[in-house]
Amino acid sequence: MTRLVTAAILGSALCTAQSADNTQPASSNVRGAPYPRIHPDLRVTLRYRAPEARKVLLHPGGPGLAPADIEMTKGDDGFWWVTTPPAVPGFHYYWFLVDGAIVSDPASETYFGWGRQTSGVEVPEPGSDYYSPRDVPRGDLRSRWYLSRTTGQWRRAVVYTPPDYDRSVRARYPVLYLQHGAGEDERGWSTQGRANFILDNLIAEGKARPMIVVMDCGYANRPGEQPASGGRAGGTPGQPSAFEDVVLNDLIPMIDATYRTLPDRENRALAGLSMGAGQALQIGLRRLDRFSHIGAFSGGLRSFDAKTSYNGVFADAAAFNKKARLIWFGAGTAEEAQHKGALALHKSLEEAGIKHVYYASEGTAHEWQTWRRSLKEFAPLLFRNTTTIQGGSR
Amino acid sequence: MTRLVTAAILGSALCTAQSADNTQPASSNVRGAPYPRIHPDLRVTLRYRAPEARKVLLHPGGPGLAPADIEMTKGDDGFWWVTTPPAVPGFHYYWFLVDGAIVSDPASETYFGWGRQTSGVEVPEPGSDYYSPRDVPRGDLRSRWYLSRTTGQWRRAVVYTPPDYDRSVRARYPVLYLQHGAGEDERGWSTQGRANFILDNLIAEGKARPMIVVMDCGYANRPGEQPASGGRAGGTPGQPSAFEDVVLNDLIPMIDATYRTLPDRENRALAGLSMGAGQALQIGLRRLDRFSHIGAFSGGLRSFDAKTSYNGVFADAAAFNKKARLIWFGAGTAEEAQHKGALALHKSLEEAGIKHVYYASEGTAHEWQTWRRSLKEFAPLLFRNTTTIQGGSR
Repeated sequence: MTRLVTAAILGSALCTAQSADNTQPASSNVRGAPYPRIHPDLRVTLRYRAPEARKVLLHPGGPGLAPADIEMTKGDDGFWWVTTPPAVPGFHYYWFLVDGAIVSDPASETYFGWGRQTSGVEVPEPGSDYYSPRDVPRGDLRSRWYLSRTTGQWRRAVVYTPPDYDRSVRARYPVLYLQHGAGEDERGWSTQGRANFILDNLIAEGKARPMIVVMDCGYANRPGEQPASGGRAGGTPGQPSAFEDVVLNDLIPMIDATYRTLPDRENRALAGLSMGAGQALQIGLRRLDRFSHIGAFSGGLRSFDAKTSYNGVFADAAAFNKKARLIWFGAGTAEEAQHKGALALHKSLEEAGIKHVYYASEGTAHEWQTWRRSLKEFAPLLFRNTTTIQGGSR
Repeated sequence: MTRLVTAAILGSALCTAQSADNTQPASSNVRGAPYPRIHPDLRVTLRYRAPEARKVLLHPGGPGLAPADIEMTKGDDGFWWVTTPPAVPGFHYYWFLVDGAIVSDPASETYFGWGRQTSGVEVPEPGSDYYSPRDVPRGDLRSRWYLSRTTGQWRRAVVYTPPDYDRSVRARYPVLYLQHGAGEDERGWSTQGRANFILDNLIAEGKARPMIVVMDCGYANRPGEQPASGGRAGGTPGQPSAFEDVVLNDLIPMIDATYRTLPDRENRALAGLSMGAGQALQIGLRRLDRFSHIGAFSGGLRSFDAKTSYNGVFADAAAFNKKARLIWFGAGTAEEAQHKGALALHKSLEEAGIKHVYYASEGTAHEWQTWRRSLKEFAPLLFRNTTTIQGGSR
């Protein structure tokens, strides 16, 4: 620990450089914060200053940082210190439990998850830069507020427009609607997921078609309506949820009126992770008149029956295969329930003769690295059969 | 307190509605959080759960929420509670001191200030909605990453494009470069300042010209360079700071190449608050060949001499008045040093015959309400004498 403490004393001089001991500040830190620090073997050292606390724990917000709470050790400097075991690469939520109270790390940027702004640490994946900014043409990430008629409230959508959007002023683009998980919001896919960098890089490599990506908040309530438990797309069976109404009646019309979209079902995809995967399947399979490509990342994959599930949409395999351009689902091998669910669905759909793509992310759990990889695999398969209208007039 | 505790038990049902006791959750809270709550007389009730803490203080990050730390009182529910005196309207940073440690409020959204993600509370200004979303045409707020040659690092600019930008595909727009204060970053003007709503509303009322607003991070270091104290635009006197080089050599060329700007000095303004005001004056007055309009909100206003200050740029009043289209500065009457500085500068410039606009924000301190008002006053005066090229081709 001595060398780490020395590094801390050197302070902000270290904020971007690698230090003599080969540890480096996490890219998820606030500007100039020397901790959390990443070791070459992906252990993570964190600290928190609480001179008068009696007990401080590191609480990982996912299994990839550490499998359970770790007790921190008080130093002479008033800081509590901890070094994790080697972490799984990717983004991990965390916070401290200071004498039992939930406390954010002032040295971390904040990331909306678990229903609040938590701390997070980015553990680099050696040899992998598909979700990092590269010196390639870049799209814009736009915040767009809109007044929802369904909820009566202002909502904010985050909209990725591809690199050539502003220059090719007559081009129109297909649209992927991409949803976050429970406890997160419209910022998750760009901030934690780095969806914009993933798309910039895929498009630069010619691996994905230039597309617009719309990331909205998966929570919605009608005026006076009690929020559904966990905000899930539940509601009365057979009835659209408030979120479904937002997507179909507020969001899609706003996006099609504001951006140069290709506004037909062939050019519209719906995907999501965890809770958002359930929403993508619920809404997408119900409304194949509006969506042609569906992606379910780590969610919505349980207890499937090809004859009856999703209102029997899969019952006529030939008809379904003709209508749905892409059914894509997957999970990390380290998230047991979701991985088993995906495998079971894969088997059921194979038996039923339903075309689909199944994906397993090796070694990742119910965390963002699974979903970054899922997007990297999913996006190149989108909008491949549809007519390109690159030169069409508005 | 009894009625407030009852309201808390009702929980998320209250998250958007006004409760029976006429208090309401702050708009700065995370989704569904019932506290902090605003009283009709603008007192604010906050709570924090720390059952084992011995002493918890509310620490205001500015004088508008409370003039000093306030001790919180422990309830039977494990929460510590406090109600402030009536607060000044506007946005206020705050955090808790839990047994001496700095702790964010998990119920608050986070706002980058004081060099980290702090909590913040929005206290409404009765009768004032110029910084709220209205049902008017809205611009986009875009995040754009760019690789800075000056620093060798990726930077993110936040770019406001006006409501008609995407539709009027041949129009070109003037650009305001707008800087945050010390301890803040490129997100401050949109998140805390609500610059996008202020511009949307001014443009909808015909009070301001449609313009692009670029909000960048005011901190920059050359590779291997020690960060300047507080990140101020200091460096060697007479030498441009790294931030000045970023603005002139990296940011402006990137913006002019990426967006449909009017790329001449007549259509380029530079303004900022506090540290950013100092930067606007330092850079803008030195480089009147690049900027024609300068705004200094609550900063950079001390020890002025019309003959020698800023390399003597004011010495020839007639020449200066011909060249500078707008010199605008102001401060809140409740921030004594800045207000006195602004008044003294106003007097000096009047005596020297230098055209300028002086503004005093009544009753506000060194906080965002002063700067929202400053932007509302400043933006309508921009780019009034310049040629409009609305129909020009690219």
